[in-house]
Amino acid sequence: MNEKTISIDVQKDLFGANEEAASKNAEIFQKHGIVSIDIMGSVGTGKTQLIESLCERLSDKYPILMIAGDLATRIDADRVGAHDVDTVQINTGTACHLDARMIHVALKDTDLSKYKVVFIENVGNLICPAGYSLGVNKKVVVVSVTEGPYMVRKHPLTIKRSDMVVINKIDLAEVLEFDVDALVDDVREVDAKLPVFRVSSKTGQGLDALIAHLGL
Amino acid sequence: MNEKTISIDVQKDLFGANEEAASKNAEIFQKHGIVSIDIMGSVGTGKTQLIESLCERLSDKYPILMIAGDLATRIDADRVGAHDVDTVQINTGTACHLDARMIHVALKDTDLSKYKVVFIENVGNLICPAGYSLGVNKKVVVVSVTEGPYMVRKHPLTIKRSDMVVINKIDLAEVLEFDVDALVDDVREVDAKLPVFRVSSKTGQGLDALIAHLGL
Repeated sequence: MNEKTISIDVQKDLFGANEEAASKNAEIFQKHGIVSIDIMGSVGTGKTQLIESLCERLSDKYPILMIAGDLATRIDADRVGAHDVDTVQINTGTACHLDARMIHVALKDTDLSKYKVVFIENVGNLICPAGYSLGVNKKVVVVSVTEGPYMVRKHPLTIKRSDMVVINKIDLAEVLEFDVDALVDDVREVDAKLPVFRVSSKTGQGLDALIAHLGL
Repeated sequence: MNEKTISIDVQKDLFGANEEAASKNAEIFQKHGIVSIDIMGSVGTGKTQLIESLCERLSDKYPILMIAGDLATRIDADRVGAHDVDTVQINTGTACHLDARMIHVALKDTDLSKYKVVFIENVGNLICPAGYSLGVNKKVVVVSVTEGPYMVRKHPLTIKRSDMVVINKIDLAEVLEFDVDALVDDVREVDAKLPVFRVSSKTGQGLDALIAHLGL
């Protein structure tokens, strides 16, 4: 039986223009005293439901803006908007990630003095969004027990480029026979010190610890 | 409440070099009388388990080669290899999709006269792989009831660029309260004639119909 492995060297993209826009965004957020959070993760990991649950708990305390990235539709922005939160939907067409320039377009066009928290929901994709700084305070990667056991091991760079990991939908772990401890071990293999939160956006489990860690 | 929508125009990449390599791959497959199938879909939709289940049913009838694409690890190739199938793992590093040139490297280095079926498992990503022809006979997109209800509506281009849709893990639809009929309707909205298969790679449900449609 043959078992080959081929490693591809991809030439690095030049992110200079993105980094420049990210710096501008960071300055804008800082100027307005805004806590900005980029939420990344694959399709169906529950990023929108997580933001909805956070908004339910925080929108009385802070005025919130949510920026949603998707190739098409404004389903996510509308879901979060239903929680009395202002929203900007960015439709990327074919682009598989948000970049800092897209966020800059959204920020330039918005009266930011109104907000204290900005949640950015990135395009549903565990790979590309991690390569682009947006100029935010925190990059959060959301993985879910519905994704099978290998998503962390297969995407070490995304984990490394994140400031914390949210393991979502833990209420489904038992029925899916998913070993959450083993997944936490996989994160620890990539970065022993990365904060990991076990969360169910549906039941609310683990959200208080996450909110505290975000300083909100 | 503000609800903005911003549409980004991304300049199209020039896929000329990829198309050229895809044509070469198509010639190679044809020359050897090989049925070649590109299996796309997000992380954790069960692409590997689908290929394992197909190999279990087909490896006595056809000699099979499986080519797996992942950023890192050879977990998927090893899983399929355990079914007495030859494998090539392509580790893409940071690249979010397989392209025709990567496949060409794998094919050039392999004695293809030995095989009648080649399964290519693309990188786990519902967006980027759809943009790159590999030179295969059929492009299959796998979605799963674990991904929430919006993955088809949010990714119409991926659906349009596929030859068929596999809705996987339908054994979990009830426990996840997932409406499979509504998802089929979403596919029909994008392409009324696209073949859709309701499958559980775990229980085997729906696999015979899929195999028949693939002509295997």
